[in-house]
Amino acid sequence: MAIDSVLKFFLPKDKVFYNLFEEVATTLVEMGNVFKKAIHETDISKRNVILKLLEGYEQKNDEITHKIFVELGLNFITPFDREDIHYLATSLDDIADFIWGASKRIINYNIDDQYNTLPAFAEIIVKSIHSINTSVYGLRNMRDLKSTIEACILINSLENAADDLLDSTMLKLFSANITAVELIKQKDIYQMLETVTDKCEDAANVVESIIIKYS
Amino acid sequence: MAIDSVLKFFLPKDKVFYNLFEEVATTLVEMGNVFKKAIHETDISKRNVILKLLEGYEQKNDEITHKIFVELGLNFITPFDREDIHYLATSLDDIADFIWGASKRIINYNIDDQYNTLPAFAEIIVKSIHSINTSVYGLRNMRDLKSTIEACILINSLENAADDLLDSTMLKLFSANITAVELIKQKDIYQMLETVTDKCEDAANVVESIIIKYS
Amino acid sequence: MAIDSVLKFFLPKDKVFYNLFEEVATTLVEMGNVFKKAIHETDISKRNVILKLLEGYEQKNDEITHKIFVELGLNFITPFDREDIHYLATSLDDIADFIWGASKRIINYNIDDQYNTLPAFAEIIVKSIHSINTSVYGLRNMRDLKSTIEACILINSLENAADDLLDSTMLKLFSANITAVELIKQKDIYQMLETVTDKCEDAANVVESIIIKYS
Repeated sequence: MAIDSVLKFFLPKDKVFYNLFEEVATTLVEMGNVFKKAIHETDISKRNVILKLLEGYEQKNDEITHKIFVELGLNFITPFDREDIHYLATSLDDIADFIWGASKRIINYNIDDQYNTLPAFAEIIVKSIHSINTSVYGLRNMRDLKSTIEACILINSLENAADDLLDSTMLKLFSANITAVELIKQKDIYQMLETVTDKCEDAANVVESIIIKYS
Repeated sequence: MAIDSVLKFFLPKDKVFYNLFEEVATTLVEMGNVFKKAIHETDISKRNVILKLLEGYEQKNDEITHKIFVELGLNFITPFDREDIHYLATSLDDIADFIWGASKRIINYNIDDQYNTLPAFAEIIVKSIHSINTSVYGLRNMRDLKSTIEACILINSLENAADDLLDSTMLKLFSANITAVELIKQKDIYQMLETVTDKCEDAANVVESIIIKYS
Repeated sequence: MAIDSVLKFFLPKDKVFYNLFEEVATTLVEMGNVFKKAIHETDISKRNVILKLLEGYEQKNDEITHKIFVELGLNFITPFDREDIHYLATSLDDIADFIWGASKRIINYNIDDQYNTLPAFAEIIVKSIHSINTSVYGLRNMRDLKSTIEACILINSLENAADDLLDSTMLKLFSANITAVELIKQKDIYQMLETVTDKCEDAANVVESIIIKYS
């Protein structure tokens, strides 16, 4: 493992990646909180104002992600494998994209969330993002592996919960006395929210594989 | 190509990846067979019992895939490029996910498969997975390239067949006298089954590129 | 950066990748033009004949993409990172796949494009592909960075325009007096066309990161 040791010698110089990933993770936590707050706002026009805020967060995250790719181009030595940086940046960016994508459709479609599926998804997503945040901050200090691994396991079980929530909601919708248009609208939104948790799982898998590699 | 030769010198040590990939490929073959058996079972409650078995296989594959990523972290030297191991593990895992995803919806939605689309998909999927299995086992012994390349070509043509099957079924459904809900349900299931063959093609492409690289 | 300089010394030998990527980019430009021409053809049977041509282009692109992967296997030294070649080839191939996928559905479904969404998408896609072509040709000569970066920025804004076009069209469709079947058909086609611009953005991001790395 001599080569590995030589590589590790160079690592401390490249704190820039940790900073950028932590900035993304922090923005995601804010997005999760704003999304949950909006979903619990009963006044629709107030709710939409809050949801609209997510567009700004999404754009902010786009810019930080872009910086990560620029840094990847500029740095010959990176703190962990280039392809892991690429995967992690992409999946974190996807989380923000799908939260804003679902939010935009919640604003536009004005669905009747009769089974309270939106608050249930908000709960799962807030928890998932909280764990993503823990695991991303865990990258800088590889010593506290236990809590990082625990966060990754939790994200996996939250993804399963989101999957079950989508399944049970779709079953109810298929038997509900609603129009096909309403069904298509709700299906669209709930699937995007389920995808948020898929992308959290993707990000967690990358973090886990980095941790295993460098610990 | 001196560096290449040095790398090859290290390869024989890492049989663990071959074992794990072969375990995944074997589980996939079982999943294909179970799926086909279920689809040909006319008693719906018996069919659902068989389909439900696929959840266990899917979880088993999840665990083996997880082991592959752990090994990827632990091993500095791998039998083929790290990114190829990552792509291959991901696409094989996706095959299992989409088979179980479609099966779960077949159980839940209880569609009227009036054009016998399900048995036609089962046929294509079983063949595709059989060829994936051949190509994955071909990785260990790079000498029998011919049958591996043939398996990859067959997978590509099976993906085209699945695409055509989806297209022709959708056209029939759009003209059929069925409710929009029934249409949405069937579209969901058939698209997932078509995606199974897409993922088989992704896996075959990775195998092929590995073979070209190291043969 | 001594190692980097050594690597650069090897680069000029591998013109084959530039040739293949330029061949893909040229075919994509032709696909965009054919697609736009078809969409503006008012005679439906003539339109379908033109759309059908796209299948041939898509197959041609499949073959060139396959050659890129074969070359990737054969060449130990590549002009830019192996994973970037993989990402770029995959996203360019996806552009062709989704153009043909949407075209096939336009032929099959015979939708009533009452809001002129198809010509609007054709316009965006032609521009996007034109910029992709500029950026791919920019790879060979890293000196004219400015126009390549401009092309990438334009592709990003075109992707946003496609997103807005899809959103506004869906909102109109949800309020329109059309059948659920017609709604599902149109949604399918417009989403595929929006995905074409997503894949253009993916390709542009890869080109940008290559340019940053090697300039």
